Amino acid sequence: MCYISRAPNATAIATFNWAILGLGKIARKFAEDLQRIDDARLVAVGSRSLERARAFAADFGAEHAAGSYAATFDGPRVDAVYVATPHTGHRELTLLCLERGIPVLCEKPMGLNYAEVEEMVNAARRTNTYLMEALWSCFIPALVEVKRTVEAGAIGTLEGLRADFGFRGVAREDFDRDRLYNPALGGGALLDIGIYPIWLAQYLFGAPEEIHGVARLTELGADVDTQVTLRYPGGRLAHCYSTLLGATKTDALLLGSEGELHLHSRFHHAHGFSLLKGDEVPPTNHYHRFEGHGYQYEARAVMDDLRAGRKESPIWSLDDSLLLHRTLTEVRRQIGVVYPGE
Amino acid sequence: MCYISRAPNATAIATFNWAILGLGKIARKFAEDLQRIDDARLVAVGSRSLERARAFAADFGAEHAAGSYAATFDGPRVDAVYVATPHTGHRELTLLCLERGIPVLCEKPMGLNYAEVEEMVNAARRTNTYLMEALWSCFIPALVEVKRTVEAGAIGTLEGLRADFGFRGVAREDFDRDRLYNPALGGGALLDIGIYPIWLAQYLFGAPEEIHGVARLTELGADVDTQVTLRYPGGRLAHCYSTLLGATKTDALLLGSEGELHLHSRFHHAHGFSLLKGDEVPPTNHYHRFEGHGYQYEARAVMDDLRAGRKESPIWSLDDSLLLHRTLTEVRRQIGVVYPGE
Repeated sequence: MCYISRAPNATAIATFNWAILGLGKIARKFAEDLQRIDDARLVAVGSRSLERARAFAADFGAEHAAGSYAATFDGPRVDAVYVATPHTGHRELTLLCLERGIPVLCEKPMGLNYAEVEEMVNAARRTNTYLMEALWSCFIPALVEVKRTVEAGAIGTLEGLRADFGFRGVAREDFDRDRLYNPALGGGALLDIGIYPIWLAQYLFGAPEEIHGVARLTELGADVDTQVTLRYPGGRLAHCYSTLLGATKTDALLLGSEGELHLHSRFHHAHGFSLLKGDEVPPTNHYHRFEGHGYQYEARAVMDDLRAGRKESPIWSLDDSLLLHRTLTEVRRQIGVVYPGE
Repeated sequence: MCYISRAPNATAIATFNWAILGLGKIARKFAEDLQRIDDARLVAVGSRSLERARAFAADFGAEHAAGSYAATFDGPRVDAVYVATPHTGHRELTLLCLERGIPVLCEKPMGLNYAEVEEMVNAARRTNTYLMEALWSCFIPALVEVKRTVEAGAIGTLEGLRADFGFRGVAREDFDRDRLYNPALGGGALLDIGIYPIWLAQYLFGAPEEIHGVARLTELGADVDTQVTLRYPGGRLAHCYSTLLGATKTDALLLGSEGELHLHSRFHHAHGFSLLKGDEVPPTNHYHRFEGHGYQYEARAVMDDLRAGRKESPIWSLDDSLLLHRTLTEVRRQIGVVYPGE
C-alpha cells in the first residue's frame, strides 16, 4: 500500500479549502478522493444549475452551493479551485479564477488547443497565480516509481514505447447526440483519452522531434480512431493509440536496451508494473496499490505547492502543458479535426 | 483439437514428394511438420554445403542430399519444392524451379520488393507452374476460423485492427554482424516480422487505400522499430507494429461494431481467440489447438492445390502476394529502407 504524504503536524496547518466548478462525473470522483486528505475540505461548488450544486454540496458537506460559476466564490475562503467542466469551458473559467487570484487545478485537456493553453499560462504568469493542468497520472504512485526506475536504468536506456487507451463509446447512430463525437464541443478520442498515451510519452521521453498522426473521423469531424507516432532524439519512437470504437487493453509497454517494462491496465492510474528481462529471468511485479480513484495525489500536490509558495508544479509545469498541447494541436492539424474558432 | 484434412483414401493416392532448398531453422521446422502428413515425404534437400545437406537428409530420412541448389533435382521425382533460404535467395531459386516446371512454395517474403515478386508471379504464370508464398498463417485453424467468424458478423462490422510482432534481437553493438540488421541481406523488422501484422490486415480488410509508415533505422539502414498505419474503405484503420527492440505481446485486437476479438499470442499461429461483447457478457474463448509448428497446414494446402490441378492457391493467391508486397514496398519507400539493386 502507498499512503499519500501528510503534513508533519496537521493540526498546526490551516485546513485547505477547495472549490469545484462543473459538477459532472469527474468532479464527483475528485470530491470523493478529497475526503481521503485529512487537511483538505470541499467548501464551495458551482454549477449552471443551482439544484445540481445544492445536491452535490449536500453529498460532500460543502458549505456553499452556487448556481453560477462566478457566485461560487461568494462564500467561504477558497484556497484552490478544481475546474471540472467539459473541455470547452476550461479556458473561460480558468481565466475567471486567475483574474481573481484564485489558484487553479484545471481538468485536462487544459484548453482546446495550443493558443488557449498559451493564453491561460500567460494569465497565470501575469497574475502570479498558481495553475496546473490536472494530469493526475504524474502523481500516481506506480507512475512516479516507473519514471524513477526507468531513469535509474532498470531497463537500460529507454528505446521505445507503445501505449493505448480505448473504450467502446456510443453506437454510430448516436454519434450526433454525444459530446464526445461532436467537434463543436471539443469532442474526439485524442483530447479525451489520447492525451494519456501522449502524456506518457512526454513524461518519459520529453519533447518529440517529429509528430505523425492518422485518424478516422466521424461525419461531423471528430476523431474516433487515432494513431499517433512520435519520434524522439536518437530516432526513438513512441506509438500512442486512442479509440472510441472498442475496448483496448489500455496498457503500456516500454522497450529498453536491457528489458521491457509493462505498465498494467489502466496504465494512466496503474497500481503496478512488471519488469521483463528476457526468457532466462522470471518477470518481477511491482505493486503500488492505493485506495480511492487516485485524484488525491494530484490534489495533495497542489496543496503542497501552494503551501510552499510555488506558482506552478515542479512535476507537471506550465511548460509541460505547453509542450503537450503543441503536440496535440499538431496532431489535430494533421488529422483535420477543427474546433470552434480555429 | 483440429486435424488437417486427409485424402479420403490415402492408399489410392501416390505419396507426395517434397524437396527443400536452404536448410536453416525454418526448413527444419517445416520438415518436422511434414512428418505429420501421412502421404507426404521429404525426398530431396539442397544446400550450398553438401555436409549440411547430408546431415539434414539423415535427420529426416530424405533420399537425396545435394551440395548445390540445382543438383537437388537430380534425384527422385519432386512434386513441390519449399524455398527456405534467407530473403535474398528467394527470387533466384524460385525462378530456377519454375523454369523447370517444379511447383514452388516460397518462404515469405516472396521477394525483396514488389518488382521481384512481380517477376516471380509472371514466371509462374508464363510457365504455368504452381507458386505460393508461404503465408502459413492463412491455413492455421484458429485464423481460418477468425476470418470465418468475423465475416459471419460475430463482432458486427469490422471497424479497426491493432497487431504487433516484436522480439528482442541482438544488442546494438552486434547490429553489424547480424543478417537481420543488414539491408544488404534484406534485413529489417518489416520484411522479417512486420509482414505478419500487415498480412493480417490484408487478410481481414483487403486492399489499403492509404499507407503510412514511420520507422527507426540502424546506422546501416535497416528498420528496427516500425509503425505502419493502413487505411481501408470507410476510413477504417489498421495499425501494424513490428520491432526488433524488445519482446511485445505479439497479439492482435479486432474492433467490431458489436464487440472485440482478441487473437491470442502469437497471433500468426494462434491456437485460439476470445470474443468480447461488452461488460455485461462474459468473454468466450475459442480454441483450435494443434500439434507441431503449424507448417503442416500450408504444406497440405499446396498438396491439395496440386492434386486438384490448381496453379495457385485459392486462399493465398498470387494477386494476394502482389498486393502484400505493393504495401511492403511502399512502406519501405516511406521509411527509407533500400535494398540491393533498388
